[in-house]
Amino acid sequence: MTKMTIDEARHELMSLQHRMAAYEHAMGLIFYDGCTTAPKGTADNRAATMSILSEEIYRQSTSKETSELLEFLDSEKESLSSDEKRMVHLLIKDIREMKLIPMDEYIAYQELMVKAEDVWANAKEASDFEMLRPYLEDLFAYQKKFAKYIHPEMDPYDHCLNEYEEGLNMEACDRFFGRLRAAIVPLLKRVSEAPQVDDSIRHGYFPEAKQEELSYYLMKLIGLDLNHVGLSTTEHPFTTSLGSHHDERITTHYFADDFVCSMYSIVHEGGHALYDTGSEDELAYTVLDGGVSMSIHESQSRFYENFIGRSRSFCRLIFPELVRLFPEQMKGRDPEEFYLAVNKAEPSLIRTEADELTYSLHIMIRYELEKRIMHDELEVRDLPAEWNRMYKEYLGIDVPDDKHGVLQDSHWASGLFGYFPSYALGNAYGAQFLARMRETVDFDACVESGDFSAVNDWNRENIWRHGSRFTPSELLGRVFGEEFDPGYYIDYLEKKFSEIYGL
Amino acid sequence: MTKMTIDEARHELMSLQHRMAAYEHAMGLIFYDGCTTAPKGTADNRAATMSILSEEIYRQSTSKETSELLEFLDSEKESLSSDEKRMVHLLIKDIREMKLIPMDEYIAYQELMVKAEDVWANAKEASDFEMLRPYLEDLFAYQKKFAKYIHPEMDPYDHCLNEYEEGLNMEACDRFFGRLRAAIVPLLKRVSEAPQVDDSIRHGYFPEAKQEELSYYLMKLIGLDLNHVGLSTTEHPFTTSLGSHHDERITTHYFADDFVCSMYSIVHEGGHALYDTGSEDELAYTVLDGGVSMSIHESQSRFYENFIGRSRSFCRLIFPELVRLFPEQMKGRDPEEFYLAVNKAEPSLIRTEADELTYSLHIMIRYELEKRIMHDELEVRDLPAEWNRMYKEYLGIDVPDDKHGVLQDSHWASGLFGYFPSYALGNAYGAQFLARMRETVDFDACVESGDFSAVNDWNRENIWRHGSRFTPSELLGRVFGEEFDPGYYIDYLEKKFSEIYGL
Repeated sequence: MTKMTIDEARHELMSLQHRMAAYEHAMGLIFYDGCTTAPKGTADNRAATMSILSEEIYRQSTSKETSELLEFLDSEKESLSSDEKRMVHLLIKDIREMKLIPMDEYIAYQELMVKAEDVWANAKEASDFEMLRPYLEDLFAYQKKFAKYIHPEMDPYDHCLNEYEEGLNMEACDRFFGRLRAAIVPLLKRVSEAPQVDDSIRHGYFPEAKQEELSYYLMKLIGLDLNHVGLSTTEHPFTTSLGSHHDERITTHYFADDFVCSMYSIVHEGGHALYDTGSEDELAYTVLDGGVSMSIHESQSRFYENFIGRSRSFCRLIFPELVRLFPEQMKGRDPEEFYLAVNKAEPSLIRTEADELTYSLHIMIRYELEKRIMHDELEVRDLPAEWNRMYKEYLGIDVPDDKHGVLQDSHWASGLFGYFPSYALGNAYGAQFLARMRETVDFDACVESGDFSAVNDWNRENIWRHGSRFTPSELLGRVFGEEFDPGYYIDYLEKKFSEIYGL
Repeated sequence: MTKMTIDEARHELMSLQHRMAAYEHAMGLIFYDGCTTAPKGTADNRAATMSILSEEIYRQSTSKETSELLEFLDSEKESLSSDEKRMVHLLIKDIREMKLIPMDEYIAYQELMVKAEDVWANAKEASDFEMLRPYLEDLFAYQKKFAKYIHPEMDPYDHCLNEYEEGLNMEACDRFFGRLRAAIVPLLKRVSEAPQVDDSIRHGYFPEAKQEELSYYLMKLIGLDLNHVGLSTTEHPFTTSLGSHHDERITTHYFADDFVCSMYSIVHEGGHALYDTGSEDELAYTVLDGGVSMSIHESQSRFYENFIGRSRSFCRLIFPELVRLFPEQMKGRDPEEFYLAVNKAEPSLIRTEADELTYSLHIMIRYELEKRIMHDELEVRDLPAEWNRMYKEYLGIDVPDDKHGVLQDSHWASGLFGYFPSYALGNAYGAQFLARMRETVDFDACVESGDFSAVNDWNRENIWRHGSRFTPSELLGRVFGEEFDPGYYIDYLEKKFSEIYGL
């Protein structure tokens, strides 16, 4: 590289990230379009474009100019701001990992993902695991290869976990899940022996247009800025940023016979969107923009979904809106019935619809299955049978078909291996965040009144605005002021469900 | 360039076009997303990405490698297929033009378009031309500069016309419009003196969900493959290909008080989509994929909209579906009333809703205004007043506000100057195509029966499958077997409206 001044290099650092953000915008939008609006027969077209754009990202990221720029900046660390240092560190790390994967495999993997996502939707609809199997086999095979390329010294599943939460490993997960399971299983047993909750209020006919009205009501209520957060429908709800945190999309799935599913998807995805859009503006178009890890992300989504959304106060707060939208269905009902219905704890088939108590068991099953596949202890073709066996063992229920079993989630078809533990960890992080928040914020009063500004301000100040400025463990350390302790979450579950079931 | 064999160069020619198609897919989708799904406050975000992606296209297109490749292929013409020769010719031409524009202006123009489209939608909603004025001024100023860069020897408005139809110029347009106006104005006068048509059948309350059902019915009826053609809603209806003709999107705009507007948007945009998706598969991801010029494109869209869609047989054909969808509103009505209503000829404010007879007058007004601005004979700030004056002169009506006047179309805000004449030319081309088609196809029987396969086969064989393989004049020459003659179109109008109005 011909002599570059440090200011030129800092400028070039921002340009490089802007360029990457533009490609990610394009690729993210192509993915989003595929899930939302694109005609059914167009996946090959998207795959062709994705493979070319990912080749461009690969080429530009791994170019000599980029390497020289980052090395130069790394050697001049003392002239950089702390944010710039972190950008350089993350870029060097990401590009080092990218370079360890041969370009043709990198591109083929991107193309495979587009196709697999498309096949998954059809396979789920047809409840036919065999359709998806060859794609999943390829995806897992690539993951195993990539793990070896990037972290040859690491257990391959630890590599997967580390991808979604820097520093996370099986040891920590095993310890966490062990403690959780030891608390949940006996509690669930006591719940199942107690008189059961009536959840008939959630069932009936709820027209999609009315459910959509409810979605926008909830989005505004929790404080989303609809100028920057859009809503679409997809087979599987998700949240994505396009280009920067200034353009955020959430999705939901409406079921005409049960409005509660979409309602909690909105609040859950809304929590993700609050986190992303809460990044400081100066982080836009950089690698520090948006949430830092999937567990912290899930801590926010499940905070809004559960600690807020499934609380008695929230159910009371929104009940008049339910009556307005569904006057026939809500006739003779009261907020307490609604609160009990959305907290009915019982083993069920679908993770996204599970209650808070059984939810983590769904995660543990996925965690165990992923681990065994990455360790070559389980074949992809045996996944459905093992899935069903574990649902019987952990939850005591029979899985009727793959649509309600192994095909229910899109994660594996999207190449997300090691992601699931984030949900359970996020719950536990959220409980500990809430304990800290309560020291200065009257959380219950906020939820009762529907004025979430103090809650959002606390989250913005402590978590959102930092984007990916800190590592997950740095961030947790700053906010917790102590070690991570799943006890907060366990206490919350025990207290809540003992009260509901009169234990 | 180090010695490349001709086969390697031919392979590289396809890769180059694949790469360009991928960028166009991404940029087209970002535009489409902005018009359909994106939250309102996200235009800056899209503009940032568009400017980076257009810079990438510019760099890659104007690179030394690309120039050398195309020069080499051009020097080895005799080894190329006729399609390859045409690809090389078009690429050399496009890149030559691109290189004549300084990169920073090229990028700034792309960014400006994204913002102007966004501002246009808001300005139209607010009926406030002043909001859009500075953007339009910049866009016209760029167009004037670009015209000088690319064709310094040409009249700047001829350059604009030539952009949308190779070889088109003011002389041809003036001659064409002169002849059309000489026929239409007296005919319209006779129509206005005849007893008027009752169009109350189109007015009432037509729920959007029912209109959407009608859209899909019409799309299927005219032969669109819904696996490859999607439908969305936008402020202004349009059609776009994403990546290749395998992924086509049309849009419409529903008005709850008049179902006819959206209905004909669907058939019009459907005609565009039939043309694009009819390209031979081997043309996908090349510069020959999709329609060759906007006039030929409009010949297809307006063929389906008017020669088919506004015919008595078509109105009769779809009437039972209207009765099914809108039983209350269609009570006591008959197909003949519907036919008359959609052919009511009278001066009106909105181009896209105009009848066939007055339609071309709307175009002539835009043509004259564009011409005068490109010739520095009219300032952008005087556009609204001139617009209103010309509507009075040509159509005899008063324009109440800019929303129903100069702000009604998105074209200028999208940088489309010289596009409007395509619509009028397309009508006339279509009438001459129809005369040729009737020599071998029983057109009336097809429309009566609703089996459009013979019509579509003729269009596919003669027009669609060739994509941009021939220049517009080559294609017209092949199909017409004679000179272009607006007389076909004038005869059609005279016959049709004399019959309807009993002249």
